[in-house]
Amino acid sequence: MLMNIFRKRLYTIIFESDTKAGKTFDVVLLATILVSILLVMLDSVVSIHRKYFNLLGTLEWIITVIFTIEYIARIWVVERPRKYIFSIYGLIDILAILPSYLGLFFGVGQSLLVIRILRFLRIFRIFKLSRYTRAGRLLASSLWSNKEKILVFIVFVFTMATIIGTMMYLIEGEDSGFTDIPTSIYWAIVTLTTVGYGDISPVTGFGQFLASFVMILGYSMLAVPAGLVTASFITTKEVRNSQVCRNCLYDMHDDDAQYCKKCGTSLDKGGDRRR
Amino acid sequence: MLMNIFRKRLYTIIFESDTKAGKTFDVVLLATILVSILLVMLDSVVSIHRKYFNLLGTLEWIITVIFTIEYIARIWVVERPRKYIFSIYGLIDILAILPSYLGLFFGVGQSLLVIRILRFLRIFRIFKLSRYTRAGRLLASSLWSNKEKILVFIVFVFTMATIIGTMMYLIEGEDSGFTDIPTSIYWAIVTLTTVGYGDISPVTGFGQFLASFVMILGYSMLAVPAGLVTASFITTKEVRNSQVCRNCLYDMHDDDAQYCKKCGTSLDKGGDRRR
Amino acid sequence: MLMNIFRKRLYTIIFESDTKAGKTFDVVLLATILVSILLVMLDSVVSIHRKYFNLLGTLEWIITVIFTIEYIARIWVVERPRKYIFSIYGLIDILAILPSYLGLFFGVGQSLLVIRILRFLRIFRIFKLSRYTRAGRLLASSLWSNKEKILVFIVFVFTMATIIGTMMYLIEGEDSGFTDIPTSIYWAIVTLTTVGYGDISPVTGFGQFLASFVMILGYSMLAVPAGLVTASFITTKEVRNSQVCRNCLYDMHDDDAQYCKKCGTSLDKGGDRRR
Amino acid sequence: MLMNIFRKRLYTIIFESDTKAGKTFDVVLLATILVSILLVMLDSVVSIHRKYFNLLGTLEWIITVIFTIEYIARIWVVERPRKYIFSIYGLIDILAILPSYLGLFFGVGQSLLVIRILRFLRIFRIFKLSRYTRAGRLLASSLWSNKEKILVFIVFVFTMATIIGTMMYLIEGEDSGFTDIPTSIYWAIVTLTTVGYGDISPVTGFGQFLASFVMILGYSMLAVPAGLVTASFITTKEVRNSQVCRNCLYDMHDDDAQYCKKCGTSLDKGGDRRR
Repeated sequence: MLMNIFRKRLYTIIFESDTKAGKTFDVVLLATILVSILLVMLDSVVSIHRKYFNLLGTLEWIITVIFTIEYIARIWVVERPRKYIFSIYGLIDILAILPSYLGLFFGVGQSLLVIRILRFLRIFRIFKLSRYTRAGRLLASSLWSNKEKILVFIVFVFTMATIIGTMMYLIEGEDSGFTDIPTSIYWAIVTLTTVGYGDISPVTGFGQFLASFVMILGYSMLAVPAGLVTASFITTKEVRNSQVCRNCLYDMHDDDAQYCKKCGTSLDKGGDRRR
Repeated sequence: MLMNIFRKRLYTIIFESDTKAGKTFDVVLLATILVSILLVMLDSVVSIHRKYFNLLGTLEWIITVIFTIEYIARIWVVERPRKYIFSIYGLIDILAILPSYLGLFFGVGQSLLVIRILRFLRIFRIFKLSRYTRAGRLLASSLWSNKEKILVFIVFVFTMATIIGTMMYLIEGEDSGFTDIPTSIYWAIVTLTTVGYGDISPVTGFGQFLASFVMILGYSMLAVPAGLVTASFITTKEVRNSQVCRNCLYDMHDDDAQYCKKCGTSLDKGGDRRR
Repeated sequence: MLMNIFRKRLYTIIFESDTKAGKTFDVVLLATILVSILLVMLDSVVSIHRKYFNLLGTLEWIITVIFTIEYIARIWVVERPRKYIFSIYGLIDILAILPSYLGLFFGVGQSLLVIRILRFLRIFRIFKLSRYTRAGRLLASSLWSNKEKILVFIVFVFTMATIIGTMMYLIEGEDSGFTDIPTSIYWAIVTLTTVGYGDISPVTGFGQFLASFVMILGYSMLAVPAGLVTASFITTKEVRNSQVCRNCLYDMHDDDAQYCKKCGTSLDKGGDRRR
Repeated sequence: MLMNIFRKRLYTIIFESDTKAGKTFDVVLLATILVSILLVMLDSVVSIHRKYFNLLGTLEWIITVIFTIEYIARIWVVERPRKYIFSIYGLIDILAILPSYLGLFFGVGQSLLVIRILRFLRIFRIFKLSRYTRAGRLLASSLWSNKEKILVFIVFVFTMATIIGTMMYLIEGEDSGFTDIPTSIYWAIVTLTTVGYGDISPVTGFGQFLASFVMILGYSMLAVPAGLVTASFITTKEVRNSQVCRNCLYDMHDDDAQYCKKCGTSLDKGGDRRR
């Protein structure tokens, strides 16, 4: 009985952020994640890696142990552990600790490095469970509701890049860096998106003339995603409720929801908060 | 009679995407187009061209045959073949196969390469006949309704680029790359559109001072197309109906249209679907 | 009397674009202006200047004579020539022909070149008197109604550039191109506006770290002018009437205006059109 | 009594901008600030510093004396000097004169240079007390009301930059400039924000392929802040009243306010204006 109350209390601390303890937990977790990312970054700098090899390794293990304890606690407090383990957040959580343990047995290879940097994704869990929830949700749902339009736009950008790239390949030739069609398409995307590295740029008069139109096209075309997203933001309704269902982990409840609309579990019993 | 039913069925598969067979046809066609574009691209890379010359040639012919069969089928199923042949899509379809046949008799020149890459445009046919129709149409009609404003804006950008380019030509001189007025105008467009290759950049103090204003102008001016398109998106009505008239190939029917508003042909008889 | 009718008819042709003759005049004038700009541009290219020196000079004089006749005609047809001569368009018109005549007596210097390129501004006269009027006016009045906000924004950008530039000057030092504060401010503007030439770029770790924030600031800040202009476009009313008052040359008449609201002159008597 | 009237009059001149004297004061102050910034900039240019060392030094002292007198006057006229001294504007005002006095005793070091450039921030005081007030306030309050969304967006940009940078570090390797993860993240931010210096750019085919997606992501993602700010601008209410409370310096009074809503001081007694 007491164990059950403690478990529910721990659930509120770890998974929600309405209580003071929950907020403290989030801040500590955020700091730990940022430190762990900083370690991975610094470890990649050759001079730092050579000098502070041992210190970085020790700190890495301390963080791995903290994340491991947290992972086990998360599995223990949720109603349906299997659901959590195979959710996106569950997978990110295991990926945050797995590389270190695998490295212990097989040696830390460079490809494991990438996986450790994915710890950064964990910070979205914290944003998810705070007052930033609304903002994140509004952004996500606005973009999602425009997915067809955004896809059509991106396909259009790629089509333009392909045709423009091929034309420039024929006009400019190999001397000015347009060595083949894929490279020319890369140049077209660099130009259409107004990035403009300058590693490849037209040198012939006609090439520069055509490139001018490509630039103005890219410059004006930026209005399309801006227009889509703005129009969507103006009409999208905000979601405020930050509660997470203990049973199915659904987290997009309406503001006045008392029961999870996906599985019927009561939402109010979860903690000691009363807004 | 049976032939006629088969022909109508084929029409639904090839030209529309409401049925399952129609959707499968679209997916297969999309894959074929993408493979054919990839072949053209890889063929332009010198090292790949040398190594896989025969393989690339064989695959190119297989694709040409597939596109030829599809082209003949399209002519056979439509009510008025002449109309289809001389429509934009009809011309793109013939351009997708012509270069290969011309190459057989006259040798494949580099200029024919461009035409083969236009196959990419065929993917818009697929987008046109799917749930992405609405998105594409909304984008197109929004931009079209702003054509005067967009033209005025582009003329303004060119005017600014001409005047700024000439001023920079006088200020900077030939040493820093501003060799003549056309080149200086090219620089002005590169800067106004915030592309910024850096192949030409001001070196004198006054040139950099003037360039700073040009950049801020280009940066702020981006708001104009963004504003135009956004204002248009907020007010434009969406079109949902994806049917294509068998007689005149008109494809912008209202959602509740039963007959083509351009030629009066019944739209409902075309297939086995019933929404 | 006949002279007066001819004069009024010429006024309609030159200054308005509702009649067929008026439209033809505009198209011919547009073509002449574009040819004249092309001549100035080509003349600046050293190799072309050497080869076609005589041809370019002859064409330049033909265009100057055409513009001179047009200028005299404009003065003759308007009610109050003095008002036209000292209006912005009047000054641009005289600047389009003056350099050639001055060059005849004092030799064509490079500084006169700039003035000839201002002929480009003449095309706005054509846009002003056509169906593009509305678009141009809407754009101009939207931007004008936001002048305070745009100025505040530009002052803010300059302030940020000054502070950021000074900080980078202290951090990076002279080795990486940040030689003095004005140059560093130039770099800050290049970065904030997302132009990014790359002629100057940070090399120290801390400099790159700070530059990252500057980039994200510039990237996000672009939303401010976009938002201002969009909000304005949504609320601004369009003006359709393209008539120009013969007496005071005022050209922003309401759609239902019969008399000039600035000087009371009747607008309907000016031509043979009846909409 | 007379002293008190003079003090109130001076308050209106220095702190408000409704009267003619107040406007003149603002213009003179603006010019002085701009000259002082120009001096700091020119002083950093080595060639100018050597040649005009004495002149620049003298002008610097004249400006310091002007700012000192102004600072003392400000303290004298406000009701609660302590409140002014420790307000943001008060601190900027003291920072504008302190470096010069400190330099007199300890020598002018390079680090003091930064502080002098902060004089630029003083111009916002002038904008604050003029017809630009509304514009600035609207911009500030719109951005502030979106602070959560903007923060979520910036965190998202950093997360993407971290993951993309790490991937490119593994793909490209040290030869093309991706020497370590922090540098690769710097490249990712340069690319995502469409700045594109070109000091680091991918050279392998797969690196360029991945970079293309990064560019299109950054290009499309710009729509998010644009959308947020635009949606906010459309709904935010403007504030017009430019009065500043003499007692507590609060300056966001409603248009019809007669008494400060923070401390109850009458707003109408402050000057001779009557709108």
